[in-house]
Amino acid sequence: MDIHDLMKNLKESNDGKIVLLVADGIGGLPMKPGGLTELETAKTPNLDALAKTGVQGLSIPIKPGITPGSGPGHLGLFGYDPLKFIIGRGALEAAGIGFVMTDKDIAIRGNFCTIDKSGNISDRRAGRIPSDEAAAVAQKLKAIKVPGVELFVEAVKEHRFVLIIRGEGLGDDVADTDPQKTGVPPLDAVGRDAASKKTADVANEFFKQAQKILANETKANSLTLRGFAKKPHMPSYHEIYDLKAACIAVYPMYKGLASFAGMELLGKAQTLSEEIDVLEKEWKNYDFFFVHFKYTDSRGEDGNFDEKVKMIEEFDKIVPRIMALKPACLVVTGDHSTPAKMASHSFHPVPTLFVSDLVRTDATQQYSESQAVIGGLGQFEAMYVMPLAMAHAGKLGKFGA
Amino acid sequence: MDIHDLMKNLKESNDGKIVLLVADGIGGLPMKPGGLTELETAKTPNLDALAKTGVQGLSIPIKPGITPGSGPGHLGLFGYDPLKFIIGRGALEAAGIGFVMTDKDIAIRGNFCTIDKSGNISDRRAGRIPSDEAAAVAQKLKAIKVPGVELFVEAVKEHRFVLIIRGEGLGDDVADTDPQKTGVPPLDAVGRDAASKKTADVANEFFKQAQKILANETKANSLTLRGFAKKPHMPSYHEIYDLKAACIAVYPMYKGLASFAGMELLGKAQTLSEEIDVLEKEWKNYDFFFVHFKYTDSRGEDGNFDEKVKMIEEFDKIVPRIMALKPACLVVTGDHSTPAKMASHSFHPVPTLFVSDLVRTDATQQYSESQAVIGGLGQFEAMYVMPLAMAHAGKLGKFGA
Repeated sequence: MDIHDLMKNLKESNDGKIVLLVADGIGGLPMKPGGLTELETAKTPNLDALAKTGVQGLSIPIKPGITPGSGPGHLGLFGYDPLKFIIGRGALEAAGIGFVMTDKDIAIRGNFCTIDKSGNISDRRAGRIPSDEAAAVAQKLKAIKVPGVELFVEAVKEHRFVLIIRGEGLGDDVADTDPQKTGVPPLDAVGRDAASKKTADVANEFFKQAQKILANETKANSLTLRGFAKKPHMPSYHEIYDLKAACIAVYPMYKGLASFAGMELLGKAQTLSEEIDVLEKEWKNYDFFFVHFKYTDSRGEDGNFDEKVKMIEEFDKIVPRIMALKPACLVVTGDHSTPAKMASHSFHPVPTLFVSDLVRTDATQQYSESQAVIGGLGQFEAMYVMPLAMAHAGKLGKFGA
Repeated sequence: MDIHDLMKNLKESNDGKIVLLVADGIGGLPMKPGGLTELETAKTPNLDALAKTGVQGLSIPIKPGITPGSGPGHLGLFGYDPLKFIIGRGALEAAGIGFVMTDKDIAIRGNFCTIDKSGNISDRRAGRIPSDEAAAVAQKLKAIKVPGVELFVEAVKEHRFVLIIRGEGLGDDVADTDPQKTGVPPLDAVGRDAASKKTADVANEFFKQAQKILANETKANSLTLRGFAKKPHMPSYHEIYDLKAACIAVYPMYKGLASFAGMELLGKAQTLSEEIDVLEKEWKNYDFFFVHFKYTDSRGEDGNFDEKVKMIEEFDKIVPRIMALKPACLVVTGDHSTPAKMASHSFHPVPTLFVSDLVRTDATQQYSESQAVIGGLGQFEAMYVMPLAMAHAGKLGKFGA
């Protein structure tokens, strides 16, 4: 019996709402030994007030020492074992542009490349063609039709695009057509089973037509296809928790990840304040809200300590608006740490705060890394955030008699 | 996907060195409630200075409540799940005398015993014959030859010796020849599959020849064979971490265990100071060093609190020599606790200190059991020491995009 089985067996419904408030990459490091982290430097009166009445702990995104990308980082927070539920590259790329996949879809990462007169690849990334040029080229590929399937082509960034093949009985065990070297032509797509052969046939026909359309381009005159992937097989929030779940995010990637968990994507917010507008408006319509704030991670990735501090302060300001809605359980956390000192995601565990009438309050006085160390929840893997949220919302019955 | 798969997928090489500094059995207990442990009593200015800038936690050797022997204790620290990677008794005995096994070897624990005129065992341990007498008897057995294989006989202690059979296609599923009682003769070795039958045939021929050689001994006039075991199948440090790994130890057992992980055995140090001489000399030649200090455990096993304190103080003194080499990550830990109060290994978790530029410093001011409780790394299973060391040395990439 795994944690999902437990949830399915023990879930109980009530009117309480759960809010999973994620400040991406919020955990950090001091710039110098003995200094304060970004979160400890920021003035966060609202979060600190919640720390006094709530309970804290440290969330380990994957396992000790492992730094997650955004995909596994969020899957963990969403309650999925991130080592068991792996999202294929194509599907992650589709998520990254906010393409909501269906079970009939195969998502594929496409790369524009340059071929010479003999048809051999001379540049695997088409000279890192600018995004606007690539978007125009991708637009032309939308004209391609293959009988029996529906095709979607969407530009991503520079030479990268996404191809989605939607149809019945398609497999995703298809070898990449990128030969991973220059001086040779793109490979044929080859399916490793009957369903995947069907996908490969479509991919090869797509390539054939694309090759004609791209013939006169100077840089992006050919393409390769990689990371063929179905929508990941994940039980939905409805199945696991009996929760009507919603996602409020600005960035496409997080919407895509939430859609894999069966969350509905709400609103078109462009700022954190607009996200909370959506939350207020939709409050009565859902049981669970994942609210994502991106810029703590962005400024950490930039290596900009002071700007990350400001983003944390901005994040703190919206907390009273959430509390005014009286969630049964509010969880404040991050999918990983992004210390400005490292200018990258890191493996360090993430301060995680639970606020509910059912918390066993601890002695912590601020929401911070150093306080979370002595928090009442200790250290736990991120995949236990959801069970803890369900429990703190009074939505789990007793296991065994 | 397990933790070794993660390491294999995420490892990245850089020039940084990792030092795993193990004070065997360093964790302890106060002699009386409310008192200080051995580590808290010892003056350890160097380790305490590192505690201030590093990050501590408590390493749980196996699972909560489980006391490890030296084998599983070290396998855990080396990053192997000690409940999955089990070392056969014969192989552990071979490791214990520093015999470096190859994949062609079957290691067997031998016991000298006494038989009566009817050939029945009258003493299963040959009157616990003194080690020097047993060594002389074992020496005589080296004359035994069996066609097609190479044999090694090495005395261990008192009535115990090790027999190694080296050859092609040998199995280790062979029943013990020790009947576990007196009044009956030693059993024949019986192999349970074709490869193991081959091993059993060699063992029976060895026994036959040994019986002639031992006929005139008064005590050790026969022998039994137990714990037939191949070298454990363990992926090496090179495979898992892409680390060129070395072991610096005085005692044979730890060299044997390190050799199972594919570490090279360096130098012939007889003291801790000589071990650090070897470390300095070989610093440029390896990525990872396991440095083992035995006497903290030995004095704990003796039940000698004060002498264990002295050993810890001796251990502390060599720390600056290691730090002068500027390791990317230094880990100070033990394979288990050995409280003088118990005069044995114990289940208590072990203070574990990480020093690196990437630590999230905690509030701890000394390297000790009571400070480790509030350390930033919390409590974790020993098998995560290596992933944490890799992460703190900047040698792991991101999991997923």
